[in-house]
Amino acid sequence: MSSVTIIGTGSMATAIGGVLAGGGSTVTYLGHGTPGTIDGDIVVLAIPYPAVADVLATYGAQLAGKVVVDITNPLDFATFDSLVVPAGSSAAAEIAAALPDSHVLKAFNTTFAGTLSTGTVGGTVPTTVLVAGDDADAKAALVAAVEAGGLKALDAGSLARAHELEAIGFLQLTLAVSEKIGWTGGFALAK
Amino acid sequence: MSSVTIIGTGSMATAIGGVLAGGGSTVTYLGHGTPGTIDGDIVVLAIPYPAVADVLATYGAQLAGKVVVDITNPLDFATFDSLVVPAGSSAAAEIAAALPDSHVLKAFNTTFAGTLSTGTVGGTVPTTVLVAGDDADAKAALVAAVEAGGLKALDAGSLARAHELEAIGFLQLTLAVSEKIGWTGGFALAK
Repeated sequence: MSSVTIIGTGSMATAIGGVLAGGGSTVTYLGHGTPGTIDGDIVVLAIPYPAVADVLATYGAQLAGKVVVDITNPLDFATFDSLVVPAGSSAAAEIAAALPDSHVLKAFNTTFAGTLSTGTVGGTVPTTVLVAGDDADAKAALVAAVEAGGLKALDAGSLARAHELEAIGFLQLTLAVSEKIGWTGGFALAK
Repeated sequence: MSSVTIIGTGSMATAIGGVLAGGGSTVTYLGHGTPGTIDGDIVVLAIPYPAVADVLATYGAQLAGKVVVDITNPLDFATFDSLVVPAGSSAAAEIAAALPDSHVLKAFNTTFAGTLSTGTVGGTVPTTVLVAGDDADAKAALVAAVEAGGLKALDAGSLARAHELEAIGFLQLTLAVSEKIGWTGGFALAK
C-alpha cells in the first residue's frame, strides 16, 4: 500500500488518483497553484508541461527522497508538429536533472484519462501503464500500486526510454486531435 | 491493385509481400545483394538499416518517381540503448534526403513480421500498419494496398512523424528482446 500525493486536479489527476486509490493507496491531492504539504512517498506531477517549472520551484525541496512521477507530453501546442524539449531528450530527463535527490519516473503519458478510468484502450484491450526510470525500487513501487488498482503496468526500461514514451504520447495526441482515434483509444500493449 | 517490388528476402520481406499479394498486388522480390530491375510502382526496402546505403547506391537511379517504403528500425544493436540516426531525425528522413525524386514513406517498422502474417497483435488486436509520409497520393496507395490485404492501415502524418514511429519500433524491440512482450505482440492501435 503506497502513500501518494497527486499535484494537480484535472482529468489526468483524477483518473490516476482513482486507479491508485482503488488499489488501496492513500491518495491526497494538492492544487498546483496553492502550495501545500506533501505527505506521500510517491508524488505524481499530474500537471501540464508548462506548469512543471513553477511546481518544481514551489515543491522542489519537499520532493527530495520521493518517487516523483512525470506524466507530461511536452508538445508544442501551437504547431502540434514537435516537442518543446531538446531533440533526443525528454521532459522526464529535465525534471530528473532538476531533482537530483528524487527518483524520477515517467509514466501515464501514453494513457489517456479515459483509458485509465475504464481500464481498457478502445473499449477492448486492457490498459497498460508504461513506467520508465532508473531506480528499480521506485519503478516496482509504482507498478505495484497501479496493478493493485486493476490495470496492467510494465517496466519500460531506464529513464532514457522516456524519450520514446514521449514520442508515443506525442503521436497518440496528434492522432486523437486529428480524430483518427478517439480519446478512449490509443496505443495499447498486447503481449 | 498495385505493382510492388520488395527489396529483401527476409522474414519482414516475406510477411509484407504476403499481405500485399493477398490483397491483389503484383509482388516481385529482389535480393539486395544481386542488382535487378525494379518493376513496381511501390518499392519496399525490406532490409536492415545497415544495408540501406548499399541498396540506395545500387538502386537509387531506378527509384526516381517511385513510392519508396522504409521499414527500418535504426537501432544501435551493440547497446540497444539508442538509435544510430541523429537525435530528432529518422532513417526515413535520411532516405528521403538521398532520394529527392522519390516519394518516401515510413511504414511496417512498428509491426513485427508475426503480426503482419497473422493479422493480429498478441493474438487478439487487429494489426494496424502506421504510414507516415509527405505525399498524400503515395500514402493512399500504400494504405489501400495494405487494407486490400486484410490489415488495417492508418495515415500517421507527415514524414516528420517517422521519428515517432522509429521511437515506437525501438521501444517495442527492447521490450521483445528483454522478453517483456513476445515477437507476435507489441503496440497495437485501438481506436
